[in-house]
Amino acid sequence: MQQVKTILLSKSVFEDNDREADALRARLREKGVCLVNVMSSPGSGKTTLLIALICRLMKKYRVGVMEADIDSDIDAVNVARKTGCRSVQLHTGGMCHLDAGMTAQGLNELGDGLDLVFLENVGNLVCPAEYDTGATFNIVILSVPEGEDKPLKYPLVFQNSDLVVVSKIDALPYFDFDMEKCAQYISGRNGAAALIPVSAKTGENMDALENWFINKLSEV
Amino acid sequence: MQQVKTILLSKSVFEDNDREADALRARLREKGVCLVNVMSSPGSGKTTLLIALICRLMKKYRVGVMEADIDSDIDAVNVARKTGCRSVQLHTGGMCHLDAGMTAQGLNELGDGLDLVFLENVGNLVCPAEYDTGATFNIVILSVPEGEDKPLKYPLVFQNSDLVVVSKIDALPYFDFDMEKCAQYISGRNGAAALIPVSAKTGENMDALENWFINKLSEV
Repeated sequence: MQQVKTILLSKSVFEDNDREADALRARLREKGVCLVNVMSSPGSGKTTLLIALICRLMKKYRVGVMEADIDSDIDAVNVARKTGCRSVQLHTGGMCHLDAGMTAQGLNELGDGLDLVFLENVGNLVCPAEYDTGATFNIVILSVPEGEDKPLKYPLVFQNSDLVVVSKIDALPYFDFDMEKCAQYISGRNGAAALIPVSAKTGENMDALENWFINKLSEV
Repeated sequence: MQQVKTILLSKSVFEDNDREADALRARLREKGVCLVNVMSSPGSGKTTLLIALICRLMKKYRVGVMEADIDSDIDAVNVARKTGCRSVQLHTGGMCHLDAGMTAQGLNELGDGLDLVFLENVGNLVCPAEYDTGATFNIVILSVPEGEDKPLKYPLVFQNSDLVVVSKIDALPYFDFDMEKCAQYISGRNGAAALIPVSAKTGENMDALENWFINKLSEV
């Protein structure tokens, strides 16, 4: 089994996070690395989805993952075990989000030679959306059991995301989730965001998600 | 239909939130009001659960509800419509949690003459746990689709809660959720926390939840 290192992030020393984020984005562009910031509620199935997606994308790209949590390393261990990709667990020391300085610390730990890095942010729909991590693009995962009204209650994370993935669609028969309303609420917050409903469990529509990434990476 | 007022909370002027929270708790005790701070992830079914619980508790107590959200008033409208109890929508102005000063503003708006007030905090497992609202007690709701590992990843909210409600147990056949492991993880964080699994949809075990509140209120 692959070793997974856990690092405790230090608080950033930078006063201007936006400037630091832009600088990080520029450094990543020079190196040819695409960094994807993944946000969602706790328990939306981020890790399961990432595992399924990474197994597909690893055939084309050199992929790494940073798992940010307040505590535990189960996500990083799981990702490393199930995909074999380079993975590091970031502990935020109680912080509810990552900023660009913290993200840079994680990237240093992960090392060079990667095309695509996923940052699984702390499970939280509020605070992570307020801090630019320096990512090339942002995605938000909304799971069917959470309900379609989340874009009404948590506007910023939907405003700041390039893609909304509706996860756990295999559970649609079990929950009252109105996909049409969900699409309306999302486009009310962000007309430019793509919407891809998937099930990592059954594989439904994972092709569309994979293709979205392949297209997006060809533009970077 | 009952009118529901939405108020935009102002940022607290108090530097010492813990002291302000203790003072609020003392004022509530004098007035004979029990304030319950309800925390969870977005989409855990807090509002549905509260509606089912309040319909039961209103037979014995005068109940009020404060719904805190970053945006929208659908929760407060829903609670007022389905229970008929006094309800107010609090907008946090983007803030990810409530503190004691903000809670006191909501209570002023709600008015006097209540025995039991529920504060539905912002859907977030991280930040609300860091701020004492002045509540008489705290509860956290963990829904089955989120998975049993949340006490490992979000320790503080479980440490600071008197009761963990596992919601949506009607979905247990559909998700891999290990209740025994969940109980272990919770007691690892907080040996004193009660654990009550319920379904607001089917009504399963709602009697136990109602009784927990009746017992708790008899102690206050």
